[in-house]
Amino acid sequence: MRPYELIKSKRDGKVLAPPDIKSFLDGYTKGEITDYQMSAMCMAIFFRGLDAVELGAWTRAMLESGEVLDLSETLGIKVDKHSTGGVGDKVSLSLAPLAAACGVPVPMISGRGLGHTGGTLDKLESIPGFRVDLSVDAYRRQVREVGACLIGQTASLAPADKKLYALRDVTATVDCIPLIASSIMSKKLAEGIDALVLDVKVGSGAFMKSLEDARTLARTMIGIGREMGKQVVALLTDMNQPLGRTVGNALEVVEAVEMLRGQAPADYTEVTLALTAEMLVLSKKADTLEAARAQLQEAIRSGAAEKKLLELVKAQGGNPAAISDLSLLPRAKHRRPVLAPRDGVVTRIDCEAVGLAAVALGAGRAKSSDAVDPAVGFVLDAKVGQKVTRGEPLAVIHYNDEARVADVERRMLAAYTLGEVAPPVGPLVLERLT
Amino acid sequence: MRPYELIKSKRDGKVLAPPDIKSFLDGYTKGEITDYQMSAMCMAIFFRGLDAVELGAWTRAMLESGEVLDLSETLGIKVDKHSTGGVGDKVSLSLAPLAAACGVPVPMISGRGLGHTGGTLDKLESIPGFRVDLSVDAYRRQVREVGACLIGQTASLAPADKKLYALRDVTATVDCIPLIASSIMSKKLAEGIDALVLDVKVGSGAFMKSLEDARTLARTMIGIGREMGKQVVALLTDMNQPLGRTVGNALEVVEAVEMLRGQAPADYTEVTLALTAEMLVLSKKADTLEAARAQLQEAIRSGAAEKKLLELVKAQGGNPAAISDLSLLPRAKHRRPVLAPRDGVVTRIDCEAVGLAAVALGAGRAKSSDAVDPAVGFVLDAKVGQKVTRGEPLAVIHYNDEARVADVERRMLAAYTLGEVAPPVGPLVLERLT
Repeated sequence: MRPYELIKSKRDGKVLAPPDIKSFLDGYTKGEITDYQMSAMCMAIFFRGLDAVELGAWTRAMLESGEVLDLSETLGIKVDKHSTGGVGDKVSLSLAPLAAACGVPVPMISGRGLGHTGGTLDKLESIPGFRVDLSVDAYRRQVREVGACLIGQTASLAPADKKLYALRDVTATVDCIPLIASSIMSKKLAEGIDALVLDVKVGSGAFMKSLEDARTLARTMIGIGREMGKQVVALLTDMNQPLGRTVGNALEVVEAVEMLRGQAPADYTEVTLALTAEMLVLSKKADTLEAARAQLQEAIRSGAAEKKLLELVKAQGGNPAAISDLSLLPRAKHRRPVLAPRDGVVTRIDCEAVGLAAVALGAGRAKSSDAVDPAVGFVLDAKVGQKVTRGEPLAVIHYNDEARVADVERRMLAAYTLGEVAPPVGPLVLERLT
Repeated sequence: MRPYELIKSKRDGKVLAPPDIKSFLDGYTKGEITDYQMSAMCMAIFFRGLDAVELGAWTRAMLESGEVLDLSETLGIKVDKHSTGGVGDKVSLSLAPLAAACGVPVPMISGRGLGHTGGTLDKLESIPGFRVDLSVDAYRRQVREVGACLIGQTASLAPADKKLYALRDVTATVDCIPLIASSIMSKKLAEGIDALVLDVKVGSGAFMKSLEDARTLARTMIGIGREMGKQVVALLTDMNQPLGRTVGNALEVVEAVEMLRGQAPADYTEVTLALTAEMLVLSKKADTLEAARAQLQEAIRSGAAEKKLLELVKAQGGNPAAISDLSLLPRAKHRRPVLAPRDGVVTRIDCEAVGLAAVALGAGRAKSSDAVDPAVGFVLDAKVGQKVTRGEPLAVIHYNDEARVADVERRMLAAYTLGEVAPPVGPLVLERLT
């Protein structure tokens, strides 16, 4: 079928045949199918969706548009984790060394922050010297030798996805579950993994605002994994307030290291342990999630997890001293507390607003060409359910640019809702899907 | 709002503000908004539609993207007719001189055939010497002096529509009523008309296959006219079989001239008179449709209509002798009858199939760069309801290219359905909407 007919078929709610999907995506990657035809197709998919077989074909075509890494020289079941993105989500920073310390090979290709969410690459780059642009060979070697490697997407992996994502970003076709799911899965499957743990964030700070959408996205990605013969477990986790107490790149690295020392806030620790335990079970390093948790606790207690992080930082050109002595990480010049305007209980934190305030401060990007200041961010003193007294700090802004701080303070104040009664405490892990 | 937000708003079913629509279309015309953003927008409109106010703004922006002709130097209420396209639809060829002969100024900008439908410009160009590419000045002068002028769209009229139509054509967003309606109306309103008669074709040979879709399109165009302060009348007319007995450019000119002599088939004559009568009433040349019809009959009887056609042909560089002596029009070298395979009654003619057979013969275009053979086409001996005897011609193919005729004969035979009982005869004018 011609491109025109394929667009029309999808528009009219028909099911596209896998070879047609393959030729459409291949044509797009080669530039034979234009951006305007692809954007019309994506909009048609927004309205009509893709069924399981179409989605498998779509993902496979994106995957096969580039190199699929072969990590077979590394023994063991290689497992990665992917998060749909949140605020203060520094899970990868502690999860990768933890899992690797327990013997799980972790090949992890991460992204940068965009919009209100942060990105693992930006956080890692706040460690002096840390490089995320390793060659595929260096990546492969490090997974084998260190047991974990965290890099950015290379040009050779899923180029169709890279091209398509840039197009979706300017044509209002980003928030479309089949396109999100196939984009994530094509990149993850190109890494050379055997299994995958998904952290699907739900709530005011997540892309999926409702449990139902998060569930659909998780099921869609699990289905793609099944089509591709990869085991996928998804946890739906709460993102109605920032995870942990820090938002901002170097600040989050500090908290991640503290987690490996057993000193991080309970919510961040719990989400990390839950996800990492799944990785141990998938990799057959533990028979049950309980047994996995015991191994993780031991890796923290013994210092093996922190040691693994030092090893990883060193392997990627970073200064391990900045991990041992966290004061060597970039630090902002100034601090300004955001003071509670009255006595009360924190009933809500608008998590997306906190993320956008971080962008306004320079910790994140409004557009992909923006530079990021590694030092700036927030330390949250008060989280949901906490009592505060008038004049006490809700959060502290770490900043370098005096011109930005008034706006950021105003945003942070607006992000907090104070009330009389603490809201009920919900679970951090809302659902587990396989 | 940014283009991204406008696409997203429409995608999410929101109503766009007129200034936003204006800036989106202006940006597109200037190349500041990309084809891929516009195609995503058109696909979103396909699913979400445009309300009356949005549609008014969309049409006005397309109209204002170019020149709006000022025909105020021509006295009287200027009325044009637009057909949504059919097979054997040579109405404009007789309607324009008829209306002009009765004193209605007719500024008519027509199109070429594309797909299975023919185009007025192609038909006119089968008259030796006839030019459809007059300058705007020559067009304006001819409307004033002759009372009618039929030309092609110029680059200066509604350029946004021209650019958008080309994009819709390759992104499966052509068959979308608000986009069709705004495209037609922006071009028609740019001609300098005061009022408009719409011939919305319904049936197997029309773009609108159902009465409901045709009615929606008609109402949408009438609504746009109202927003713009122009009176619009729409007739929904039957297109379940070709109109008249000829399909093909010069063959249709012959039939059109015969109509002006009172010698054309009843269906074609009736549709032309019904539409032209509306023009006379809109132009206040007649108080009632009955009075208008009497004037039209008189213009035929007296020869005034044919005389007006001669005048028009001469003004546009055509050879008037080819109208007076129709044998001077281009004639195909060969004729081949399509013979009835058995005795019976014609119960159906697949009108789109006849149109596509004409394209295969060279009378129309599969793509806009194709050349057209003015001489080739069909003369239909049998129409729906007619009894035929085995071996009697259903139609005669007029052709030049021996290589094409077998395929065309097969197509024509397949287009005819013979049965036992004549189907009920429906009205030619199905509805009249104002």
